[in-house]
Amino acid sequence: MPYAPLLNDTFLRACLGQATDHTPVWLMRQAGRYLPEYVATRAKAGSFMGLATNVDYATEVTLQPLARYPLDAAILFSDILTVPDAMGLGLSFEAGEGPRFARPVRDEAAVRALEVPDLDKLRYVFDAVASIRRALAGRVPLIGFSGSPWTLACYMVEGAGSSDYRQVKTMLYGRPDLMHHLLAINADAVAAYLNAQIDAGAQAVMVFDSWGGVLADGAFQEFSLAYTARVLAQLKRDGADGRPVPRIVFTKGGGPWLDAMRGLDCDVLGLDWTVNLGRARALVGEGVGGKALQGNIDPNVLFAPPARIEAEVARVLADFGTPHRDRATRGPTHIFNLGHGISQFTPPEHVAVLVDAVHRHSRALRG
Amino acid sequence: MPYAPLLNDTFLRACLGQATDHTPVWLMRQAGRYLPEYVATRAKAGSFMGLATNVDYATEVTLQPLARYPLDAAILFSDILTVPDAMGLGLSFEAGEGPRFARPVRDEAAVRALEVPDLDKLRYVFDAVASIRRALAGRVPLIGFSGSPWTLACYMVEGAGSSDYRQVKTMLYGRPDLMHHLLAINADAVAAYLNAQIDAGAQAVMVFDSWGGVLADGAFQEFSLAYTARVLAQLKRDGADGRPVPRIVFTKGGGPWLDAMRGLDCDVLGLDWTVNLGRARALVGEGVGGKALQGNIDPNVLFAPPARIEAEVARVLADFGTPHRDRATRGPTHIFNLGHGISQFTPPEHVAVLVDAVHRHSRALRG
Repeated sequence: MPYAPLLNDTFLRACLGQATDHTPVWLMRQAGRYLPEYVATRAKAGSFMGLATNVDYATEVTLQPLARYPLDAAILFSDILTVPDAMGLGLSFEAGEGPRFARPVRDEAAVRALEVPDLDKLRYVFDAVASIRRALAGRVPLIGFSGSPWTLACYMVEGAGSSDYRQVKTMLYGRPDLMHHLLAINADAVAAYLNAQIDAGAQAVMVFDSWGGVLADGAFQEFSLAYTARVLAQLKRDGADGRPVPRIVFTKGGGPWLDAMRGLDCDVLGLDWTVNLGRARALVGEGVGGKALQGNIDPNVLFAPPARIEAEVARVLADFGTPHRDRATRGPTHIFNLGHGISQFTPPEHVAVLVDAVHRHSRALRG
Repeated sequence: MPYAPLLNDTFLRACLGQATDHTPVWLMRQAGRYLPEYVATRAKAGSFMGLATNVDYATEVTLQPLARYPLDAAILFSDILTVPDAMGLGLSFEAGEGPRFARPVRDEAAVRALEVPDLDKLRYVFDAVASIRRALAGRVPLIGFSGSPWTLACYMVEGAGSSDYRQVKTMLYGRPDLMHHLLAINADAVAAYLNAQIDAGAQAVMVFDSWGGVLADGAFQEFSLAYTARVLAQLKRDGADGRPVPRIVFTKGGGPWLDAMRGLDCDVLGLDWTVNLGRARALVGEGVGGKALQGNIDPNVLFAPPARIEAEVARVLADFGTPHRDRATRGPTHIFNLGHGISQFTPPEHVAVLVDAVHRHSRALRG
């Protein structure tokens, strides 16, 4: 099943430290509730998981933002919690409440019972990847993704979102042996899951460590970063077409540990809005082993008037500075994104302003 | 009204960079729901504000943790939102919901109507400070406090806690002129409020920038740090007894901006658990203008078994390293604390383990 040739490789080039004519841009959660057409499709699907598990619906909503905006990448429509759901924890989304597991992992017996799930239970995801690739017809590359081992563990132990992470940290501090066992299984499961997405056609993969930033210094390195590294070590380097598949790691609140992340075997580091891109570039973006940087405007900027959105875009681009421009070598590159997922309350016309501003200002920045 | 002489000045000395025999320790929210005696007093008071506005109850709960643990400081029992309440916004605490303002500040008219409140409306706080000083009888020093201008603004505009700070950031990005006006009033009100606490007998004051860490790089410096600096510039340097009153600034999530905080005219920086104390000491703790550091163990460590609590305490102390030991000069010092408020679910006997471990290990660390 060869897919159509890629027409816009700006995103993939920037991931790999290669020069581009403009700074590529995509938005975390770009297929989402701020789009009325998404809301309409979700209503047809009946529920979030109804949407995510139906190949046609998942394909439809993945492509919706591309019909509105000249984004430089598509991202698989799915959820970060599909893997623990396949482990049998019983994922559901209550209206207005976020995800919830029917069977959270709270004791030793529950941890010991965990296994890397049969990937066949996640076939709906790989089928969606293939369907989206066909529908994209080479327009932009498709990003696959998963939650990080630690972020999955947070939801698996808490059973839902949390304000204090008391249950999962009680296990971490009280029974670190159990937590390590759980994280090792998660890491192997995430690696197998991302490799199957690559086999199905994902052209880049991203690990979302959405809750890495709630950990203490020391605990982050031991319980989150080490298991992200374990995932990365198992990932396929190339897709079925023989092209390299860039690996992106995004840690919300990970600013304090950028230097430690430099050692990760990935191509791109995603950053939230607390991090200054110029400083991050100096720390982890330059030289041998330097990473491309992805981010990092505050999604709330999209509530401001267009002129202010444009000014903030220009500032984030200027913070990073002029990207690498020599086509013969590799160097520091930037992929524009939000610092976190787009808000459901975002005016869709403001997203057009942002995407246009990124393309226009980043061309100007290259002189 | 001269108060009794201070018997334990370990905390005040450490705040000022002076050598001490052990590392002083107190805990954010140490008078709180994890103590059954606190729950009993609150039940008598009927509500949180009933507790905070009654001088006898406020005195009683402030001293409760000192009866259990050899803590090195007391902190006024109050709330960070008393100032906007005195501005007329109508503070209440719904059961299990956190604070809520009846009249949030959402438009230009509401911002323009704000004024520095008549301090007489906050007399209950200053009366509590005086009452607590008398009840302490010099046992340990008393810390006064306020929310930071930005943190107050978050609650004033959102009207309650928030997961995305959409309202307050919409004003910040969309109407920065209004936000600056609001923050200037907050800063002047907070300064007057803290000065009145100092006049009443507070021996140190702390500014809680609980929500500084939700701001983007650049916005933090402009909308939070600058107004904390405006507060600090107006604070009295000495108490009625002529002793210096140390100024502490705590920014939850402020790790990315430690270097910018070095310029603050304060004595102590409070740190959350994401920050490595050794690195923070190297950045802001050494040399002329160096700050004492306060923090920063994860409150969830208190759910672990005693041996693990002790090991984590030893690790945090070791991260800071040996404090300044020359009694003739000033140098890097550490005040042990949590990285955020103590959880209501904390077993009280675990707090005893932590306080004892801090005292014991920090004596050993001094050789």
